[in-house]
Amino acid sequence: MVNVAILGYGTVGSGVVEVLTTNKESINKRAGKKIKLKYVLDLRDFPGTPIEDILTKDYEDILNDDSVKVIAEVMGGIEPAYTFVKKALLKGKSVVTSNKELVARHGAELLQIARDKNINFLFEASVGGGIPIIRPLNQSLTADEIYEITGILNGTTNFILSKMADEGLDFKTVLKEAQEKGYAERNPEADVEGFDACRKIAILSSLAFGMQVDFEDIYTEGITKISDVDMIYAKKLGCDIKLLATSKKLDEKVYAMVSPMMIGKDHPLSNVNGVFNAIYVKGNVIGDVMFYGKGAGKLPTASAVVADIVDAVKHLGRNIVSLWSTKKMELMSVDNVLSRCFIRLVPENVKTVRNQVADIFGDVEYIKIENIQDEVAFVTNAEKEGILRNKLDELKTKGVATEVLSVIRIDK
Amino acid sequence: MVNVAILGYGTVGSGVVEVLTTNKESINKRAGKKIKLKYVLDLRDFPGTPIEDILTKDYEDILNDDSVKVIAEVMGGIEPAYTFVKKALLKGKSVVTSNKELVARHGAELLQIARDKNINFLFEASVGGGIPIIRPLNQSLTADEIYEITGILNGTTNFILSKMADEGLDFKTVLKEAQEKGYAERNPEADVEGFDACRKIAILSSLAFGMQVDFEDIYTEGITKISDVDMIYAKKLGCDIKLLATSKKLDEKVYAMVSPMMIGKDHPLSNVNGVFNAIYVKGNVIGDVMFYGKGAGKLPTASAVVADIVDAVKHLGRNIVSLWSTKKMELMSVDNVLSRCFIRLVPENVKTVRNQVADIFGDVEYIKIENIQDEVAFVTNAEKEGILRNKLDELKTKGVATEVLSVIRIDK
Repeated sequence: MVNVAILGYGTVGSGVVEVLTTNKESINKRAGKKIKLKYVLDLRDFPGTPIEDILTKDYEDILNDDSVKVIAEVMGGIEPAYTFVKKALLKGKSVVTSNKELVARHGAELLQIARDKNINFLFEASVGGGIPIIRPLNQSLTADEIYEITGILNGTTNFILSKMADEGLDFKTVLKEAQEKGYAERNPEADVEGFDACRKIAILSSLAFGMQVDFEDIYTEGITKISDVDMIYAKKLGCDIKLLATSKKLDEKVYAMVSPMMIGKDHPLSNVNGVFNAIYVKGNVIGDVMFYGKGAGKLPTASAVVADIVDAVKHLGRNIVSLWSTKKMELMSVDNVLSRCFIRLVPENVKTVRNQVADIFGDVEYIKIENIQDEVAFVTNAEKEGILRNKLDELKTKGVATEVLSVIRIDK
Repeated sequence: MVNVAILGYGTVGSGVVEVLTTNKESINKRAGKKIKLKYVLDLRDFPGTPIEDILTKDYEDILNDDSVKVIAEVMGGIEPAYTFVKKALLKGKSVVTSNKELVARHGAELLQIARDKNINFLFEASVGGGIPIIRPLNQSLTADEIYEITGILNGTTNFILSKMADEGLDFKTVLKEAQEKGYAERNPEADVEGFDACRKIAILSSLAFGMQVDFEDIYTEGITKISDVDMIYAKKLGCDIKLLATSKKLDEKVYAMVSPMMIGKDHPLSNVNGVFNAIYVKGNVIGDVMFYGKGAGKLPTASAVVADIVDAVKHLGRNIVSLWSTKKMELMSVDNVLSRCFIRLVPENVKTVRNQVADIFGDVEYIKIENIQDEVAFVTNAEKEGILRNKLDELKTKGVATEVLSVIRIDK
């Protein structure tokens, strides 16, 4: 029998209790040992619930109980999670977590402690909810040199973009509905500004390339500027707009980026709609593989946490190899990345605008939508991001546009 | 350092050597030990190749070399593979294999020997080529009770069906092209009759449900009867035709089936085209997850074999838990499974056929294609397969049809 404790009885924490109860028998079989939930830590009371008798408000109860071998941290946020997790690992307890902020910021350090102590720090639930991606990266794609990971890593933004595309609604209307349905938080910044996806691609990149990728170094753009009019253009171009998080190796250097992207219907991620997530991995021998599923939600996330508990129980006193080292990876600037952009602008002079655009961007592809007046939309050729940015500035400085309405990368 | 041997220097075997060489450094890092290829077994000579010096024609050389800890069997077929693998395991050597016939027929027994000897028998490459599916089933979806696995598990048939759909060609023409391109074998029976997919779903079902599913018990139908005219109807219905292998739990009983299926555009497998494979798993807590990638090919398959070698090296003298027991699972008859069918027939009497069909199938949905004369096509309501089969017989016995042209299941 192995005793485990759960830190936090919120959505995920109560899901973990539910999964451990519902699938008890098969879970114990898979783990090869009986798993016993000994403590749940939460500052609140839960009278009348099944965890009433094992609830504690004092973390020291758990930390100092040597019979507890595995701790599931599902509180979220950096503190007190970081302090709790570090203390547990230093005490020789394995820790599993769903906390992407914690893993992105302190993953390398916590993995190193786990290695030193010959225990495990596991975090399958921190990326892609229930989708198995961390363990496959760590244990299945071991024959490959990975050179690209691209994913739809945030269900909230994917829900919003899918609904905008399907129903022709604008961002604010859909965000409000998502908030009412509980798909978006009251403060939606972490999702809609791309910060959540940024932390997740930082975690995946660190694992795939074996060094610490700091999320602060990742170029990140959210979806707040995407409009219902952009969606009309995307359709005309045969594209969907998705918030993609990507990390690529080019000539032994890695760059990473989170940004909305127009992608064609034959792109493997174009059919990933609603709250679903998908992650696309390219390796030098395996080619392309994709992992798809619900990226969030109580039970899918709890499923991943419990799978990590099972793995931790199977590997008590034995560290599972992970390549993620504490050595910092210097990312390549996105300035050197080739991109094409979809651009909408309000011209200063309707008669000369095409010539002016040609002077700056060369021969571009124009898109005309009936009923949309007073603006010009086109797709540039592929150029380095740094150069594109300068050219975008020229649209204003050279008197081409009174306003640049949209700039969206396109991969088609 | 760990010595390994490869049995068979065909397509996959030479791929394994290539992967071990190309990605040597990262593979050793992942394994935590240096992997040394000590032998390649093959009856042929390969003068001037890098394996010339380590080639042997005598399996005893490998078997009796105690320094060889891991063997990769990539010969295919039941014998001598089975004898070689069993002997190796009994000698305490871990074995990894890409051989689906071997795993489907003898997997349970070989896993049991590995358990008894505290070593490993791994077979990620036997299903889905490079796609990680065996290890995720075994190690990632451990919190779930799995109740459905459905997949496109054969790249050859998927290539043929995709091309028939895209180019309006008939089965024989596309098969011939696939054979010329090396996508189909000269004797294509194993692929086009569904036998290959049948073995693969037997393996996945055994793993997911923890008991031996014999492939001979699985209802199996191939794609040889699918015509270019069926494809026209499928398009009209907004469907693709795919060869699906499925295994489902209904009221604590499991049924399994391989058959062509018309699926709607919103089905998660409808966008899986060409030589790609995808596997869809439903669990009671994780919901739906899907795994996608190239299901065959030298390097993707070799990637999975090498990942298993790495895992075997990491787990020398320690068995990785798998639930697949030698206990045989009695499958539920497909007679009790609810299906809808698309049916095309040549009527005996054009004037009465609709009434006659209504007498047998009730109120059905007719599909009319311009330019297709002299036949009637409709989709039935959902009924048990056993009842549907009787009703199909009645089409002949009751003088409704002079010929039944097509019967294809539909999931839409």
